[in-house]
Amino acid sequence: MSKQQFGVVGMAVMGKNLALNIESRGYSVALYNRTGSKTEEVVAEHPDRKLKATFSIEEFVDSIEKPRRILLMVKAGPATDATIQSLLPHLDKGDILIDGGNTFFKDTIRRNEELANSGINFIGTGVSGGEKGALEGPSMMPGGQKEAYDLVAPIFEQIAAKAEDGEPCVTYIGANGAGHYVKMVHNGIEYGDMQLIAESYDLMQQLLGLSVDEMADVFSEWNKGELDSYLIEITADILTRKDDEGTDQPIVDVIKDAAGNKGTGKWTSQSALDLGVPLPLITESVFARFISAYKDERVAASKVLPKPAPYKYEGDKQELIEKIREALYFSKIMSYAQGFAQLRSASKEYGWDLPFGDIAKIWRAGCIIRARFLQKITDAYEKDADLANLMLDEYFQEITAKYQQAVRDVVAIAVQAGIPVPTFSSAITYYDSYRAERLPANLIQAQRDYFGAHTYERTDKEGIYHYSWYHEE
Amino acid sequence: MSKQQFGVVGMAVMGKNLALNIESRGYSVALYNRTGSKTEEVVAEHPDRKLKATFSIEEFVDSIEKPRRILLMVKAGPATDATIQSLLPHLDKGDILIDGGNTFFKDTIRRNEELANSGINFIGTGVSGGEKGALEGPSMMPGGQKEAYDLVAPIFEQIAAKAEDGEPCVTYIGANGAGHYVKMVHNGIEYGDMQLIAESYDLMQQLLGLSVDEMADVFSEWNKGELDSYLIEITADILTRKDDEGTDQPIVDVIKDAAGNKGTGKWTSQSALDLGVPLPLITESVFARFISAYKDERVAASKVLPKPAPYKYEGDKQELIEKIREALYFSKIMSYAQGFAQLRSASKEYGWDLPFGDIAKIWRAGCIIRARFLQKITDAYEKDADLANLMLDEYFQEITAKYQQAVRDVVAIAVQAGIPVPTFSSAITYYDSYRAERLPANLIQAQRDYFGAHTYERTDKEGIYHYSWYHEE
Repeated sequence: MSKQQFGVVGMAVMGKNLALNIESRGYSVALYNRTGSKTEEVVAEHPDRKLKATFSIEEFVDSIEKPRRILLMVKAGPATDATIQSLLPHLDKGDILIDGGNTFFKDTIRRNEELANSGINFIGTGVSGGEKGALEGPSMMPGGQKEAYDLVAPIFEQIAAKAEDGEPCVTYIGANGAGHYVKMVHNGIEYGDMQLIAESYDLMQQLLGLSVDEMADVFSEWNKGELDSYLIEITADILTRKDDEGTDQPIVDVIKDAAGNKGTGKWTSQSALDLGVPLPLITESVFARFISAYKDERVAASKVLPKPAPYKYEGDKQELIEKIREALYFSKIMSYAQGFAQLRSASKEYGWDLPFGDIAKIWRAGCIIRARFLQKITDAYEKDADLANLMLDEYFQEITAKYQQAVRDVVAIAVQAGIPVPTFSSAITYYDSYRAERLPANLIQAQRDYFGAHTYERTDKEGIYHYSWYHEE
Repeated sequence: MSKQQFGVVGMAVMGKNLALNIESRGYSVALYNRTGSKTEEVVAEHPDRKLKATFSIEEFVDSIEKPRRILLMVKAGPATDATIQSLLPHLDKGDILIDGGNTFFKDTIRRNEELANSGINFIGTGVSGGEKGALEGPSMMPGGQKEAYDLVAPIFEQIAAKAEDGEPCVTYIGANGAGHYVKMVHNGIEYGDMQLIAESYDLMQQLLGLSVDEMADVFSEWNKGELDSYLIEITADILTRKDDEGTDQPIVDVIKDAAGNKGTGKWTSQSALDLGVPLPLITESVFARFISAYKDERVAASKVLPKPAPYKYEGDKQELIEKIREALYFSKIMSYAQGFAQLRSASKEYGWDLPFGDIAKIWRAGCIIRARFLQKITDAYEKDADLANLMLDEYFQEITAKYQQAVRDVVAIAVQAGIPVPTFSSAITYYDSYRAERLPANLIQAQRDYFGAHTYERTDKEGIYHYSWYHEE
């Protein structure tokens, strides 16, 4: 009996869809799921496809040609370790395990090292695009042994989304946890993008009283220009949808304003904190989700904490809409500048030599943050692979110079009107901090030296200094 | 030969000063340091004190009366583990190890558990107040076995700082890592306080052109009112000091604007992210330090990234100074509200039953964030031990209602003038988010359901919903 060319463990929707995607490119695929009925179901649903259901780990491993290429699509965390442990005794040296889950990059680094000791290759692969992307073409961020990746690359390049120029949205990211790290930052950026859109929507609604339909048109219009992206596109679409439970209201108006999260945004912020990289915009977007989830506390607080003095925007409606658009694009640039600065720092810290331009390239299609402007990021890194910060690239400099006034106006209005814009504010703050030749941190250093003898540097000469603040010294 | 009543390991400045403080209350103290010459030095410097130098772990342990009370003042991390391991074989059941270092609370939880298995008590104790505090009276946050703490409490109460009403600034915080956790949050709050002061200073300098001397007077004046606190007091003092290296300039003007950090602020933010607690102000203050440390990048960026249109403040000088003061007090309240909300969440998560009112009480003296307004926090929790958020307390409600307009004005001006005020902005954003009956997170939930089938709740009925966004569904 001939062997299968590929194996997939885990028949939840992502695993199933990736298996179908791979099979659709001409590969035979062995399937395994802890609960066998699920595997049977998938095969029964697709009787004409080259899918082989297996019902034990041994049968599964045995049915795949060597070196085996096995994709794990199981719940990130202990379930992944358990699956690896159950596979391990049956694998041969040179086999390739691919973890396509939303795995924390430090787990991937650990597993890559442990498995390498047994001669097994381990490719931690970030997969973005949701269910639909998994089936039709996701953006993929693989990290691990390069020579092992080369053996799966032909498949990955076929199943990945294709950018407008036909290039597949997958590229080798770097050693061990690099792929999962980049996917994590992708998700952090996604949090930021979503919060920026939410603030724009909130401002149009609260300051201008735009209806949901009018806002659908605005986002639709925005999607034709610089902001062209999947998230703007689906926002426009969402705003046209009516409730499916019979109220006849726009669906957004009946959805509760309490955002969930799966933890990848939080990881991105925590890693930035570890690396000493400022990541305020994404972090504010994570905190904004947390605050939203305090729904009951907010409702109670709204009854006792006073609003500001009534604010009425008296200016031109279209002008403010355009300012919000500019603020959104400006802030998006700040967010990506922070995310890529984090990647730059992580690349040094973990020795990954990350290909920044290619990373922006493989995000152009398939993934949730896909956007026209990613090409500008690729261009920037192609001009200067060692760019310290995206803002310093000519294109981004020009945009930020042109749009900074809009953000200032929007934030000033929002703050006076009592509309929270955590990511818009943090975008302009980041810009103003980063371009500040001098910040008031000298006073902080003086305080630290005063109470903790932490010492300081001087502006006029090299060295480490301590001041005799106390007379007894 | 009679035994010593207490032992201290680690003769760096904090260990030395705490040993001297303890001895000054009438206790005999055994000293040990890995490098014996250091121990000899301390004893030689203080020939008339009841200090006993010891030169091996065995001699040290042997010289202390049982149950032994031993304070470890060594570098947090592996050095603490190594010290514990070296002590362990010589200890007896019921002995008490106290870790007074800046230890990460999860390490304390682990060590407490490991040592409990050997019958040894472990009191992780946060100590704040710097060198001077250690010698003259720090604020102390002990966590661990309550019955073991009771055996050190008499000493701790004697060496701790005393509040104005004479109460010692130490109280039992809770089991295992509770003390170090509270100390961590104390330090996070300290980061926030320092950044708020730095922004106030920056605004007075940049918007009003106040001289360093004039600002010293302003802070001095502020220290007489609601803002009365150690950090405001030393800021006023710092601003009066002249360079000690001969330039004759104010010392702040020659200190480099690149702030360092020891990691406790970062831990506070990372823990808040783990707990799902919004902690934007402290986190912005951590990121502000990070950005300040990018000094070379900032100087380069300042040459290419344009400023906003020139902004000139035309209003009354005193009026703006007063607004900055109100903004500072308002923002400080937001920061403490966030910090205490984090403590509340951590208390539940780790089962500590933290005494919020007492925590504010023991911060009234000795520690870096000591301030008059901490009494107001104690009062608030004495009225309602289960207060969801400090802002909801009557006193804080009144203040925030009164001062919110000042923050809005200050932030709006700063944003237009291009002066970064990350913590002021995040304070007003937090206020406006927390008191928002409705936030735009409904749109985020719609997006998450659209691309990831993450489901949502509704405003009008219970349950978990998913919308059929795609026609094929």
